[in-house]
Amino acid sequence: MIRIGRLQSFSDAVIAIIVTIMVIQFKVPSGTDIFALKDIIPTFLAYLLSFSVVLGIYWNNNHNLIHPEKPVTTDIMWANLHLLFWLSLVPFATTWIGLHYSNSFPTAFYALLMLLCAIAYNILESAIERHHGKNAKLAGSFANIIKRKVTQTLYLFAIGAAFISPWISDLLFVVVSVVWLIPDEKIKRSTFLLR
Amino acid sequence: MIRIGRLQSFSDAVIAIIVTIMVIQFKVPSGTDIFALKDIIPTFLAYLLSFSVVLGIYWNNNHNLIHPEKPVTTDIMWANLHLLFWLSLVPFATTWIGLHYSNSFPTAFYALLMLLCAIAYNILESAIERHHGKNAKLAGSFANIIKRKVTQTLYLFAIGAAFISPWISDLLFVVVSVVWLIPDEKIKRSTFLLR
Amino acid sequence: MIRIGRLQSFSDAVIAIIVTIMVIQFKVPSGTDIFALKDIIPTFLAYLLSFSVVLGIYWNNNHNLIHPEKPVTTDIMWANLHLLFWLSLVPFATTWIGLHYSNSFPTAFYALLMLLCAIAYNILESAIERHHGKNAKLAGSFANIIKRKVTQTLYLFAIGAAFISPWISDLLFVVVSVVWLIPDEKIKRSTFLLR
Amino acid sequence: MIRIGRLQSFSDAVIAIIVTIMVIQFKVPSGTDIFALKDIIPTFLAYLLSFSVVLGIYWNNNHNLIHPEKPVTTDIMWANLHLLFWLSLVPFATTWIGLHYSNSFPTAFYALLMLLCAIAYNILESAIERHHGKNAKLAGSFANIIKRKVTQTLYLFAIGAAFISPWISDLLFVVVSVVWLIPDEKIKRSTFLLR
Repeated sequence: MIRIGRLQSFSDAVIAIIVTIMVIQFKVPSGTDIFALKDIIPTFLAYLLSFSVVLGIYWNNNHNLIHPEKPVTTDIMWANLHLLFWLSLVPFATTWIGLHYSNSFPTAFYALLMLLCAIAYNILESAIERHHGKNAKLAGSFANIIKRKVTQTLYLFAIGAAFISPWISDLLFVVVSVVWLIPDEKIKRSTFLLR
Repeated sequence: MIRIGRLQSFSDAVIAIIVTIMVIQFKVPSGTDIFALKDIIPTFLAYLLSFSVVLGIYWNNNHNLIHPEKPVTTDIMWANLHLLFWLSLVPFATTWIGLHYSNSFPTAFYALLMLLCAIAYNILESAIERHHGKNAKLAGSFANIIKRKVTQTLYLFAIGAAFISPWISDLLFVVVSVVWLIPDEKIKRSTFLLR
Repeated sequence: MIRIGRLQSFSDAVIAIIVTIMVIQFKVPSGTDIFALKDIIPTFLAYLLSFSVVLGIYWNNNHNLIHPEKPVTTDIMWANLHLLFWLSLVPFATTWIGLHYSNSFPTAFYALLMLLCAIAYNILESAIERHHGKNAKLAGSFANIIKRKVTQTLYLFAIGAAFISPWISDLLFVVVSVVWLIPDEKIKRSTFLLR
Repeated sequence: MIRIGRLQSFSDAVIAIIVTIMVIQFKVPSGTDIFALKDIIPTFLAYLLSFSVVLGIYWNNNHNLIHPEKPVTTDIMWANLHLLFWLSLVPFATTWIGLHYSNSFPTAFYALLMLLCAIAYNILESAIERHHGKNAKLAGSFANIIKRKVTQTLYLFAIGAAFISPWISDLLFVVVSVVWLIPDEKIKRSTFLLR
């Protein structure tokens, strides 16, 4: 019997590798002045985006996966591997959008991959809830649900927007990063006021 | 004295690295439309296959390795390193079959490597059972034995089939993946009905 | 709720990957005599420097992060990811300075990145102290504060010095490494004598 | 205060990365028949050697590092980083010897690096013993001491032998691997008979 804690450590390791190996694909500039860095700025920004979105969402969402001692069932295991599979393609999509940031298709591809990661995360969470029950008192879970709905909607828009102008999609990617930077408590309070 | 738990964490880390670094070898397409992805489809499918087979079999089989507190003997340690050695060659075989999917030899080589990984897993398990005894009540172990026998037979066939047509081998690889997707409980029930 | 211990393990993994993947970028010399190694000496020295500074400072400073059971708040998490982001750029900066060690800009860039890492570390520590309180009795913390002030001042000087002569900066980098080699107890004693 | 257990996990991660990334440097053959593999045989054998020696020695020697709860002192930490530094160069030396296996210098360089790793391991162990005392009842430690003395002597010979014929050194490398394959109990018994 494998416990969720071990699958979690494994997933943490995969995430650590994913965000770190992206940097190997930075080409070291042949020039030696400040202008030599100009060529890698798009790649750098794409990396900054993927780094913060992958890690931000992954770590924030992990609030809900808090049963390290419970056993892993076959469907939890596959749901987790399914999430890791899409996440593992992030370095590829990041390098592609970094090199061709003004083109529609690499931008739409990046948005699609991010959407698939988000959906895979939901599938994993449902699988865990199905077996181990919902944790109703979970702090910040309400704000978390809002963040995730917003994220998925923005990625969906970003796929379409890439074919009008990739810059709209880029803007939406930045908005997603900012959404995850806001502490859950602030969202809770503001949605309370809206009601 | 090293405990099995530590060897297990080490092996998890090696597996995490193996499945993640395969993606570094994806060449970023120079084109920027949907057709640019056409060239990487075989590599992508080979990666999908290796990712699911390596992780699926590895995590499913780990049901049986449940003595984290017991000591690692010299033969358990070498049996584990022997398994990790063959697994570490998976990225190489995956890239090769991805680039030359219509050729017999890279396909047979991939099937052979997968068979060696499966055999290495059996050797490791025997070593653990020899020292720490069989765990008779293990849930799903009967289904697990069937899955592994089927897997090894299919890989053996796939080696030969590659020289008739690589597509037969590819089909067998997909069947192996599907076998591991089926929850153990279903296999238990159906084999019960057959008796 | 994520505990600091898990974020710490994650960060350890990222650091392990960062210091190890730098070596992939060593080009294997085409020659086979001792002179073949001549070309990789600057890259080797740059690697030695980054390896010892990143690991030395990271592990030494971790004295202060000793609440593995306390929860990770949103700002601790982002402060940690912010630190990992700058650290993840170290392999890139190391390869660049290794290839162009006699040029001002790659040297200044390296010094700047190291300064950013040091500042990011301070931000993380402040975030932890804000939530979990200061640990006043911390052994060696006084020596640690001195080491860090010296480190940051030297990196600041190294940025400017690179435009006069990169060799001055290189010397300052070596001094930083040496500072971290000195056990905390010795600094404590010597500063005691100075008072 | 950092405990030895954490430094051990960190070192395990570095070792896991080192043995796995060596495979990235395998060039995928352009041919598709069995002869296409001919060119990578030396690289493959060099990898097999490094994999088994690094992992075999590392895991076997770890018998002695059994105080996971004790604190890490400054000199233990640096002794550990010193060991990891030399180990991190193994992928580079492995690729070089794999490509130029019939040349003296890459072979001597490989032997020298292995000797440096072995010495670094001794330094680490002395540092731990100095602080936390010797563990006299350690199972297999006597056989372990013999294995290590033999290993270091063989590497020393291999450095010199490389300049007569690299094949002598290669033979010595194989002998080292075999030495570590022998269970400690057998060595104990045979040295007992010799007395």
